[in-house]
Amino acid sequence: MGMVDVKAKILEKNYSKAAVLRDKFKNTCVLNFVSSPGSGKTSILEKVLVMFKDKYKLAVVEGDQQTTNDADRIEATGVTAYQVNTGRACHLEATDVEKAMAELGYDLDLLIIENVGNLVCPSQFDLGEDAKVIVLSTTEGDDKPIKYPVMFRVGSSFIINKTDLLPYVEFDVDKCIGYAKGVNPELEVFQASCKTGEGLEEIAAYIEGMIAKKKNA
Amino acid sequence: MGMVDVKAKILEKNYSKAAVLRDKFKNTCVLNFVSSPGSGKTSILEKVLVMFKDKYKLAVVEGDQQTTNDADRIEATGVTAYQVNTGRACHLEATDVEKAMAELGYDLDLLIIENVGNLVCPSQFDLGEDAKVIVLSTTEGDDKPIKYPVMFRVGSSFIINKTDLLPYVEFDVDKCIGYAKGVNPELEVFQASCKTGEGLEEIAAYIEGMIAKKKNA
Repeated sequence: MGMVDVKAKILEKNYSKAAVLRDKFKNTCVLNFVSSPGSGKTSILEKVLVMFKDKYKLAVVEGDQQTTNDADRIEATGVTAYQVNTGRACHLEATDVEKAMAELGYDLDLLIIENVGNLVCPSQFDLGEDAKVIVLSTTEGDDKPIKYPVMFRVGSSFIINKTDLLPYVEFDVDKCIGYAKGVNPELEVFQASCKTGEGLEEIAAYIEGMIAKKKNA
Repeated sequence: MGMVDVKAKILEKNYSKAAVLRDKFKNTCVLNFVSSPGSGKTSILEKVLVMFKDKYKLAVVEGDQQTTNDADRIEATGVTAYQVNTGRACHLEATDVEKAMAELGYDLDLLIIENVGNLVCPSQFDLGEDAKVIVLSTTEGDDKPIKYPVMFRVGSSFIINKTDLLPYVEFDVDKCIGYAKGVNPELEVFQASCKTGEGLEEIAAYIEGMIAKKKNA
């Protein structure tokens, strides 16, 4: 069996498991947050989920190679979080989510999956989600959508985070959006800052729209 | 053949090829720069390599999923660069470096490999290098060494980059260094800023020391 076949087989196995998950998620909106390490996924979730916690049944699955730092941060906001430590693995797989759901239960309006910080590998692993939400911070460079196009191609929405740092970094927001839309014209784009609060209500509204859409599907 | 065996086989095959490369690099200091996307690897190299270009025979291998942006930036400084586009792949493998060397030739004092932006996967792929140089920017969070310990364990040196942004971000330098040294006490640590110039001479001196060490080995 060649290496290409093996990879295809791993992805195929993951895809089958993701399809089973997707079936179980028929009343649950599932968002898979992906980014490089340190783009601010957890900070955005801390700020947004706190608006939802009395309104929806929700939970977060946190993927990291090691530590429970992110799950601890989410739980501190009063939202249930389940930490998956992937060890050497660079992405979450459907089987990780399946294990988490055995603990969390499927009776949820919203499940947020915060993937391992990696702008590459998680693009290839379907977790049964409704949408992949890509986060990029303004400190990472405006050319990332064309340097890592695979992720931008499979994403549904794109948050440009840490806009408060724009005065201190070289990052052309319009150029970045242009690159991203060039790779994937369907991307819904947000600009956000957890420091100033910019964009957080828009992101919350987007997520609520996704929840409603799933409920009415 | 199980998936674990297959992975072991891929790594083993890469390791054999890296050993062949290492043999050919006996007079060449090879540094493998690794980081998340946008941590500033290319910017550091632009600033440091320009100090070396009339003094050493050097070249850069640039790894990215797509675009020749980074190779173009390096070539603009007058240093030879060879771009490898990895497509969907999330790391460089020894075979990529072998192909690049067929173009660049082994008669070099210094070869810099700038890996694909990914703090996870490149940790497992030996490229025949003398040292892995990890770059983390102050915008990525001070807990990254413990969240991504595999990379910090295999690194030889660690550059905390974008110190000019410290006033605007929550990043405790001492804490970060403590975490990194906790994972790998041997790490040589630098603090740098391509804006203010902080640390660039120290990094240049470190690289020159590595070149001299290799020559005298």
